[in-house]
Amino acid sequence: MKTVSENASFRGTQGVYSHASTACNCEMTFAVFLPEEARLGPVPVLWFLSGLTCTHENAMTKAGAQAWAAEHGIAVVFPDTSPRGEDVADDDAFDLGKGAGFYVNATQDPWKKHFQMQSYIADELPALLAENFPLDMDRQSICGHSMGGHGALMLAMTLEGRFKSVSAFAPIANPSGSDWGRKQFAAYLGDDDQSWQQFDASCLMAQKGFDGPVLIDQGTEDQFLDLLKPEALASAIATRRQNATFRMQPGYDHSYFFISTFMEDHVAFHADALYAD
Amino acid sequence: MKTVSENASFRGTQGVYSHASTACNCEMTFAVFLPEEARLGPVPVLWFLSGLTCTHENAMTKAGAQAWAAEHGIAVVFPDTSPRGEDVADDDAFDLGKGAGFYVNATQDPWKKHFQMQSYIADELPALLAENFPLDMDRQSICGHSMGGHGALMLAMTLEGRFKSVSAFAPIANPSGSDWGRKQFAAYLGDDDQSWQQFDASCLMAQKGFDGPVLIDQGTEDQFLDLLKPEALASAIATRRQNATFRMQPGYDHSYFFISTFMEDHVAFHADALYAD
Repeated sequence: MKTVSENASFRGTQGVYSHASTACNCEMTFAVFLPEEARLGPVPVLWFLSGLTCTHENAMTKAGAQAWAAEHGIAVVFPDTSPRGEDVADDDAFDLGKGAGFYVNATQDPWKKHFQMQSYIADELPALLAENFPLDMDRQSICGHSMGGHGALMLAMTLEGRFKSVSAFAPIANPSGSDWGRKQFAAYLGDDDQSWQQFDASCLMAQKGFDGPVLIDQGTEDQFLDLLKPEALASAIATRRQNATFRMQPGYDHSYFFISTFMEDHVAFHADALYAD
Repeated sequence: MKTVSENASFRGTQGVYSHASTACNCEMTFAVFLPEEARLGPVPVLWFLSGLTCTHENAMTKAGAQAWAAEHGIAVVFPDTSPRGEDVADDDAFDLGKGAGFYVNATQDPWKKHFQMQSYIADELPALLAENFPLDMDRQSICGHSMGGHGALMLAMTLEGRFKSVSAFAPIANPSGSDWGRKQFAAYLGDDDQSWQQFDASCLMAQKGFDGPVLIDQGTEDQFLDLLKPEALASAIATRRQNATFRMQPGYDHSYFFISTFMEDHVAFHADALYAD
């Protein structure tokens, strides 16, 4: 693991690191914010999964998470959204290929050689983090934005017992029923659209739910509402009687101005779960 | 004036606007954050002047000011750092020409046709803002980072009675005695370096001071400490017995991670002054 940069931030450290990823078969970059409490011992971990076109950097610089993570003594991990490098398959569209890994393991060519983001986020990166940072891996929560909201919800419901809480900003809530999902799942996973449901937050919510609290924020003026399909997730949450708060936020769009506005709430929500018992 | 974008942010609005500037003889872009209180009537105004290479956008997206401005019901104005456009003079160096206006009025060719940033910030933009936004122009304060810290301090001491308070993050504190200043002042203002002192925060502090509170934050690990010369300003503040707080912040560098860490303090500091009497 190489240190790309470290900056003092809110009495802690905002670092950027890179490493050779076995899962993705390429060099991967990620960011970690460590609060000052990490100098004394392991701290709880909040994952932030980013949306289409993002790298590790967007949320790190624009979401304002460090202020609240510092307040609660929580580390924040910002992974990249796809494999990277010249020999990694890509597509001209912004929503397929690099910057658009969708947090699944591709089974199809040309993607499967590198696009193993589910294994990367679920297995490889946690192991690397546990080895190199003072993190309490028994206290993890996860959140994300848009494609990263899909990733957070999907991983939280799939990796049972891993995360204490899950939240999302404007998640792609029903990818198997949306052009943000169907195109990518077909490319990465093949044409059997029944198999896609195991990667779809609304389907997972209907089938199994999440063993902990859920928080969803969705702006009413989001320019991508038709692609995000929050109604599918809201319906599944209510039908399941899932422990969840689903907020339609009047006037907000899909941007980081929306995310930063409600980041304080999300970090406090996760802190409640991370420090429980 | 044209609206470039408006995004809901912290219950208010983060807008970006452009207009034909008479002072700079080109199209200029600026950003304004309006808190929700602005829907009911005029609100106090905090100016944020940015540093070298920045536009209106850097601080708007990375400084985290909106959270605290919303808390205190204060608007924040983010001007650009120089004139813009294909016919505007420039230099290959990042610290001269576009992105490096230094908030002075150039008297020398080829700069003087467009580089009239002092008039722009002191006169033209305030008049435009007063006409188009619900701002209480009798309650203004100013802050800035690096070159913008120089600009904030210089304008606060020059425009007597205009600003209730002034603060700076890692300001270029003594430009007439630094390679960040001498090169630019020579280009924009000519070779008479005695005349530069009227644009130098440390000289102005020694000569006249500021009729209000001053807050300076400077990181001890700032990679540009030798160019910023905080010791000149600290000395002038102490010698004058200026109402001021000067903080050397251990471990912090010159980045927005430093700015965002202390933005809450700066906005609260200005709020105290803006709401006084």
